[in-house]
Amino acid sequence: MKLYIDTDHIVSELDELAGFSDAPAPAVTRIVFSPADLQARAWLKEKCAAAGLGVREDAVGNCFARWAGTDPSLPAVASGSHIDAIPHSGRFDGTVGVVGMLEAMRALQAAGFRPRRSIELIHFTSEEPTRFGLGCLGSRLLSGSLAAERAAALKDTHGATLDEVREAAGFTGGLESVALPPNRYHAFVELHIEQGPLLERTQVPLGVVTAIAAPATLDIAVQGEGGHAGGVLMPYRRDALAAAAEIVLAVEAAAKSTGAIDTVGTVGICEVFPGAVNSVPSQVRITADVRDVQLERRNAVLAAIGERCQAVAASRRVTVTCDVLNADAPAECSVLVMGALEAACRELEVAYRSMVSRAYHDSLFMARIAPTAMLFIPCRDGVSHRPDEFATPEDIARGTLVLAHALARLAG
Amino acid sequence: MKLYIDTDHIVSELDELAGFSDAPAPAVTRIVFSPADLQARAWLKEKCAAAGLGVREDAVGNCFARWAGTDPSLPAVASGSHIDAIPHSGRFDGTVGVVGMLEAMRALQAAGFRPRRSIELIHFTSEEPTRFGLGCLGSRLLSGSLAAERAAALKDTHGATLDEVREAAGFTGGLESVALPPNRYHAFVELHIEQGPLLERTQVPLGVVTAIAAPATLDIAVQGEGGHAGGVLMPYRRDALAAAAEIVLAVEAAAKSTGAIDTVGTVGICEVFPGAVNSVPSQVRITADVRDVQLERRNAVLAAIGERCQAVAASRRVTVTCDVLNADAPAECSVLVMGALEAACRELEVAYRSMVSRAYHDSLFMARIAPTAMLFIPCRDGVSHRPDEFATPEDIARGTLVLAHALARLAG
Repeated sequence: MKLYIDTDHIVSELDELAGFSDAPAPAVTRIVFSPADLQARAWLKEKCAAAGLGVREDAVGNCFARWAGTDPSLPAVASGSHIDAIPHSGRFDGTVGVVGMLEAMRALQAAGFRPRRSIELIHFTSEEPTRFGLGCLGSRLLSGSLAAERAAALKDTHGATLDEVREAAGFTGGLESVALPPNRYHAFVELHIEQGPLLERTQVPLGVVTAIAAPATLDIAVQGEGGHAGGVLMPYRRDALAAAAEIVLAVEAAAKSTGAIDTVGTVGICEVFPGAVNSVPSQVRITADVRDVQLERRNAVLAAIGERCQAVAASRRVTVTCDVLNADAPAECSVLVMGALEAACRELEVAYRSMVSRAYHDSLFMARIAPTAMLFIPCRDGVSHRPDEFATPEDIARGTLVLAHALARLAG
Repeated sequence: MKLYIDTDHIVSELDELAGFSDAPAPAVTRIVFSPADLQARAWLKEKCAAAGLGVREDAVGNCFARWAGTDPSLPAVASGSHIDAIPHSGRFDGTVGVVGMLEAMRALQAAGFRPRRSIELIHFTSEEPTRFGLGCLGSRLLSGSLAAERAAALKDTHGATLDEVREAAGFTGGLESVALPPNRYHAFVELHIEQGPLLERTQVPLGVVTAIAAPATLDIAVQGEGGHAGGVLMPYRRDALAAAAEIVLAVEAAAKSTGAIDTVGTVGICEVFPGAVNSVPSQVRITADVRDVQLERRNAVLAAIGERCQAVAASRRVTVTCDVLNADAPAECSVLVMGALEAACRELEVAYRSMVSRAYHDSLFMARIAPTAMLFIPCRDGVSHRPDEFATPEDIARGTLVLAHALARLAG
């Protein structure tokens, strides 16, 4: 089968999608259920409808666009990703897997392919944790990994619950309806930029992902004692920011202490109260994001951070609470789906390599309910979550072509 | 002369003033030129008019309420403070000196006192640095310590200039008109809560301030490199927050290293960009507030912080810029004004002690153009800039009574 991927079409669609943003170009900010996100969702549904796909949305806003197979009773083959974007980030993270999948389906249609299994594009709600503090909201619910009651009560930074926010955005119905029945999908694939430097450094155009690193997020609150920056003398201080600074450095040190290149630890948020030049901080909230491909090693880092928090609390006479927001297990990818991707690469004579995903993806949760794998394309300098995130049109088109061939194999 | 201070009146006026706030009680937030601040200003002008005082406002919103003396050509005697409040602070900082002075003037009027020199209440604009990053805006301009052009261009956290904001609030005219001519005042006194624990600990009800500590503020910006919290491996990171954490601890260490109890160093603000759980921080802005009663020792601490910033920049491959926002010299108080306060204490048989002010006050700048001193009253647990800031009605009334007697001596 000869498939034609329209590279210009992909590029122009990524351009259009990047236009739905709350940050000035080239930066993209598209927080779930913001006006920009709702505009992007409407745009995507139009594109899917124009491709003749049947569109369904669930109660949390996950969107499914189906090309019915000749035997629609069989479990479907699906692919997709997310379109939300963290503040001041780039235009390729997630979107490549959505726009690429749409183009792959159009290419298969144009080539006259008739799938036996239905083929479905999935757009997942809130892969990014920006608004509700918990990433992969849509795929967690789909896979039954997150209880509906817990999800409904999640609050955004303004105190609005997920239930309030999704209903205001037009997504109604109980969240318990989101979880999918077993055997809904025969296979799931996610096309994504690598978000790391390996493919570029080794000059290999495609990566077949064998495992997805295990992420964990801690929410750390420091309660000290405020006061006037002139009036409270140093020996009497219980400065919440000085304590938090020690914890920030402890997160870094704990990640480095494993000696493994795969361990990473990041404090991305630091909120100070009251936040005045001349006031000793009384409260600080920080987050710690810890990842590893080995669950035990990652959990040892979490434990080390927890111990250090208590040591800082004792030495500085402050209170430190350390809540685990999520601590997911790593995912192993499916031999069936990896095999289809590798077979497509060989058929097309495209070089590929096996690799792990250090970043967090909806695939982590889809792997719990369907045979799953990921296909990575290079991104410039390994950069992601930044305005200068970039993937070449050729790399995106190559990934899309391999995806389309793999879908054809899997859909039979 | 027998003066009657109406304690209930002072308490109810402090209550009313505390009601003009953007934070729920007991916290007070009253940022300069916010609606709450403008309401408080209107309230104060009404109170002054009701006391028969002639009210004048200058181009930056400093407000002068004058009781004309029998020889109005003589330099006047003035007292006052500020009514703006940092986020989530208390109800006594500044306001005691404004409400207390108003009550002192009413008490002198009620007793039939006829001053030779005019007596003036001054309410200073933006003693707190919250909005424009620079404290004592009003008194800096009054005393010619801040150039009008530099003041006009100061920006608030939303990028609006002082000129734009004050004009929107109704304060027009060039800022160069704010500076006062020499010899405008014969004396200036500021009644204030101590904002420290000394009076309470030593059980002395009043403090006569002999010197005001020299404050300095640094604005420190760290520029690193952002990226995905999963994708950027630890050896390749240039994490702006980890660098800032080292600087936060360096500020604390530098202040402690002098060995002097009078040296304090505080990081009160820490702003992280982009501020997402799963993103390596690319930029962080912190402030450092350093104070001491000895100028050389304070400047040595500033130099040590600057050196540490550059060492952190080098070791972490980030850029650190360290701007001095202000580095004012300490003020020595006037023998004339301290003498009047002490004579009033002796006349009323009230114990007092000499002490330094560790906090920053408009008096620091008034001391540059007028013989100046301050009168401190105790505050509970030495606490200030917090919702639980508290001074007893008795202590406030006692300070007001001593202030009134001192004004009578100075106004002749």
